[in-house]
Amino acid sequence: MSNIIKILYERIDSQDLWEKNLVISRNEYLKVSGTIDTNLYFILSGSLKIFFINDHEEHIIRFGYQNNFITSLDCFITEEPSELYIQAIKKTEVRVISKSTYMDFINHNPEHKELWDMILGELIVQQMEREKDILITSPKERYQRVHKRSPQLFQEVPNKYVASYLRMSPETLSRLQKS
Amino acid sequence: MSNIIKILYERIDSQDLWEKNLVISRNEYLKVSGTIDTNLYFILSGSLKIFFINDHEEHIIRFGYQNNFITSLDCFITEEPSELYIQAIKKTEVRVISKSTYMDFINHNPEHKELWDMILGELIVQQMEREKDILITSPKERYQRVHKRSPQLFQEVPNKYVASYLRMSPETLSRLQKS
Repeated sequence: MSNIIKILYERIDSQDLWEKNLVISRNEYLKVSGTIDTNLYFILSGSLKIFFINDHEEHIIRFGYQNNFITSLDCFITEEPSELYIQAIKKTEVRVISKSTYMDFINHNPEHKELWDMILGELIVQQMEREKDILITSPKERYQRVHKRSPQLFQEVPNKYVASYLRMSPETLSRLQKS
Repeated sequence: MSNIIKILYERIDSQDLWEKNLVISRNEYLKVSGTIDTNLYFILSGSLKIFFINDHEEHIIRFGYQNNFITSLDCFITEEPSELYIQAIKKTEVRVISKSTYMDFINHNPEHKELWDMILGELIVQQMEREKDILITSPKERYQRVHKRSPQLFQEVPNKYVASYLRMSPETLSRLQKS
């Protein structure tokens, strides 16, 4: 767990700001398309995928693993409905904090605010890397870039989902992993 | 020009924080791959494209138009070299402010800080929309989504660059614009 996330998690914990814990079974949804969900979730165990559906196809855009936050970031920012789904890949336990509680927590302490700004900055850079990943045509190069940046992904997430995220068939991914 | 950008521009102006103006000719570079550029630019006139090169191909990821800010956002955040190019599409005049001057300006006034946070939030949402744009396979749907969200793009930028940004041939774009 990155240090920043660890600090924020422990501070939220010590101030007793978690609303509840949720246990979701494998394949169960935390959020479905067309809904507003502005909660922030901290993943105690398990893993989740975020995707949208276009032309009957599931497009995975993000994963969440143990000891990280996950949220429908578009809802979190705009407070409007989004077409994203968040679904458990395996049995998952999350802790829930509402946006308003979280933003109070952030805005009442300049140090928290600074940590949160760092997370948002890192997120923007990750999104730019992700945009490049998608635009790069060579499956091998896409695989190598993501493997270098997020080795954890390949341990935590079944290959069929990683392949979808990397825009390649599971067979191509297996071949690349062996080479 | 969005209201937020207008306010920030005028405040920077009234505090006389612009370092200089730069005029760049058509096809001239503001930044090339492998360099660090943490400046923020305000576009007085003209337009620019941001791209990276992969496998000898130019992949356009962003445009900048009159009355908007442009920056190599990855450098701006990480202060490390990036592979992005920023190039003028036509003769362009920008005003330059350094990151350190800009961040002082932002951090010394809670109202400025709030406006900047709103810009960053909007940016994250735009990047998510862009990610979806790229993943959607139908050229028609990609065109319609971007046209709805950024009609200005099609007025300011020559079709060949818009086509590259939309991952389609100029011929496909022309056909879609006529239909």
